[in-house]
Amino acid sequence: MAVPKLSVRGQRALKPALSYWGLTTEALKTEATEANLDGQVIVSVSENRIFNSTKFLNKLHNSLAKVEKPALGYDDFTGRRGFKEAYAAFANDTLLPASSKGINPAHVCVSSGVGSLLAHLSSIFQDPGDGILLATPTYGALYNDFTVSAGAKVIDVPMTKDYELSVELFDAAYNQARSNNITPKSVVLLNPDNPLGVIRGRDLLIELSRWCEEKGLHFIVDEIYANSIHTPENSAYPFESAVAVLGNNESEFTTLPEHVHVLWGFSKDWATSGLRAGVIYSSNQDVYNALSNVLYFSGVSNYLLDGLATMLQDLPWCKQYLAENNALLHDAYASVAQVLESHNVPFVPASSGMFVWIDLRRCLSSPTWEAEQELMEIMFTHGKFVMTPGEAQHAPAPGYFRICFGYNTPKVVAHGLNRTLEYLNHK
Amino acid sequence: MAVPKLSVRGQRALKPALSYWGLTTEALKTEATEANLDGQVIVSVSENRIFNSTKFLNKLHNSLAKVEKPALGYDDFTGRRGFKEAYAAFANDTLLPASSKGINPAHVCVSSGVGSLLAHLSSIFQDPGDGILLATPTYGALYNDFTVSAGAKVIDVPMTKDYELSVELFDAAYNQARSNNITPKSVVLLNPDNPLGVIRGRDLLIELSRWCEEKGLHFIVDEIYANSIHTPENSAYPFESAVAVLGNNESEFTTLPEHVHVLWGFSKDWATSGLRAGVIYSSNQDVYNALSNVLYFSGVSNYLLDGLATMLQDLPWCKQYLAENNALLHDAYASVAQVLESHNVPFVPASSGMFVWIDLRRCLSSPTWEAEQELMEIMFTHGKFVMTPGEAQHAPAPGYFRICFGYNTPKVVAHGLNRTLEYLNHK
Repeated sequence: MAVPKLSVRGQRALKPALSYWGLTTEALKTEATEANLDGQVIVSVSENRIFNSTKFLNKLHNSLAKVEKPALGYDDFTGRRGFKEAYAAFANDTLLPASSKGINPAHVCVSSGVGSLLAHLSSIFQDPGDGILLATPTYGALYNDFTVSAGAKVIDVPMTKDYELSVELFDAAYNQARSNNITPKSVVLLNPDNPLGVIRGRDLLIELSRWCEEKGLHFIVDEIYANSIHTPENSAYPFESAVAVLGNNESEFTTLPEHVHVLWGFSKDWATSGLRAGVIYSSNQDVYNALSNVLYFSGVSNYLLDGLATMLQDLPWCKQYLAENNALLHDAYASVAQVLESHNVPFVPASSGMFVWIDLRRCLSSPTWEAEQELMEIMFTHGKFVMTPGEAQHAPAPGYFRICFGYNTPKVVAHGLNRTLEYLNHK
Repeated sequence: MAVPKLSVRGQRALKPALSYWGLTTEALKTEATEANLDGQVIVSVSENRIFNSTKFLNKLHNSLAKVEKPALGYDDFTGRRGFKEAYAAFANDTLLPASSKGINPAHVCVSSGVGSLLAHLSSIFQDPGDGILLATPTYGALYNDFTVSAGAKVIDVPMTKDYELSVELFDAAYNQARSNNITPKSVVLLNPDNPLGVIRGRDLLIELSRWCEEKGLHFIVDEIYANSIHTPENSAYPFESAVAVLGNNESEFTTLPEHVHVLWGFSKDWATSGLRAGVIYSSNQDVYNALSNVLYFSGVSNYLLDGLATMLQDLPWCKQYLAENNALLHDAYASVAQVLESHNVPFVPASSGMFVWIDLRRCLSSPTWEAEQELMEIMFTHGKFVMTPGEAQHAPAPGYFRICFGYNTPKVVAHGLNRTLEYLNHK
């Protein structure tokens, strides 16, 4: 008998989560450094590597010195109480206005990264074939998060030409899905946005939340870049967490409407994507109960949670660390924006996150996805530069790219980008 | 509009993973200690708490001092290479005979606990409704692991009266499932066994593996108690890992047949169930590739993996630690066996793990599951003693219980058991 096959889910998992991963992996073999600018410059990975990691490592290690025996045992799989309390205090201080009552630690759940939480929500909200509404362009990895295990269908909601969003756009996509016999069950909003690096305003949050409530949809707000607001002067709106905008302050804590769920994590703002610790705030008891079961499958080490709790309790240190990170992101963004301006490349002014969304349509041999792929390869070969292609992010047309300027130093990123644009301008 | 509902999977997750969890949680509020023997004695949790955790905490903390910047970044989600190499060297030294070529670090994957890996395998092997064959009685939490997210159906394979297993038993259950229109896709074997604490011999492994191959089934061998062989003289067989028994030594490494997958972890043998680090060894490239996608959803912190790698590299320390643990388990088992013998309670002699399977059928008011539940409550109230009821472990008949003698000190466990049996004998 032949070797047994994988299930349909298993077969789906065989496909790489990101179509452009091959080129990135290839480039990693000869990656550029400040000492060797001639290498490949990678800006296709959503990772913040520009920060002073020694500072974080030392702080975490010192915090772990206080960990005691209970951290080696089982506990509530939604996360250790001490961590939840420390995280709530941190979130209250950094993400919510002083007038807020603060979040309820008992409504916090912890998992192995925000991607893990998104996959769990996809599984507990959608039956296989049900829809998730997602504004595009968007973070390419989300498609894998929502579909590979849960079998949900992602329904794209294209933004306007100016990358605006409105209830009308979601409503149109909703109706289209229904006419295709797909039942939407949830809406996902990234705020700050990835790939655009823009902030969405409170009016949109309020309108979308109301519309979700009317339609009976869960509203998932992914705020993983909430503490990476590097250039606020570029934004029409200040960053306001959905907890502050949609939360109810009438009881001891700020609680969320039962259809709203807010996500945060350590990977991006803290420049620690290998740490694997994501957080959800939801006041929906069924969601909490269902998560308390399935989070057993993606639990964060209690040992690590106890160390992180101690670290978070040092709020001045945390705020200083995040402020330093934002200062570095600010400079890195300014550097890449300057190169783009000097070459007259159109881009969306960013205020947050670690991305710039650029328009290289003028460099395509034809307005096709094949030409975009061809341009990827030209840039790889002649510019030694690997961006995330628009196709993988469901861009409105071929020729758009995302630069993650956090993946190398400003000097290296600017060098690679300049080298590439010079080649494209003169070929 | 009402609050949106959860999916079918989400609804399944609302049910607690273990039916007896309520009583355990209640007992935890007034748990007995050596200083307060009058409290509730809990032996219903699969957790090893008798070991010297300070020793582990110190070793891990010192090992983490060496962690460097790359541990804060993304890496292969099957786990850091350094951890895999250290784990392979450890497994070679502690689980495989000297004649073995040793396992291939490139065939190792890491996840947030063995329960997480079992759930992933359930998802990538079974389509919803497909079957998993599982010998009973068994560890009750497995039903949740296999069904809640993946929607697989567990097909019980009752052991003989003497708790023996054979291919014939699996074949009968397989045929029965097929006649019920369930397609079995895999077999799970616990070796050492939970709840019995017995070791399965190499002949059974070979025969079951051959039969799985003939039927086109995956063969999952869960060896999470592989390094907890506390009283080997009680076993008819020595413990031999499925890697040693079924592996192929013809190439550079010992590889497994493509249908065989072996699991290990830190929770039990290392007395660190809150650490959340499980390991799978599989030489099936499709399984590896599918896991490399879905393990993103349950990744272990690279920071922690680097610390564990350093710890594992100190093989003499690891072996000494495990030897001390087994000496403690040996004494704890002897203590509980002595109490059982003094009260003439039938039990299965254990050689491994941290369990004793006991027969209290004589204490039932009638041979029913209701009477078993009633006995649970009598023991809770009058003996302040909480065991895992047989019903939750798919026992052959009402009246069997599992004692986890690792959940408190031998003194406390013996006191609670004695108190309970005295009450039952004299009521």
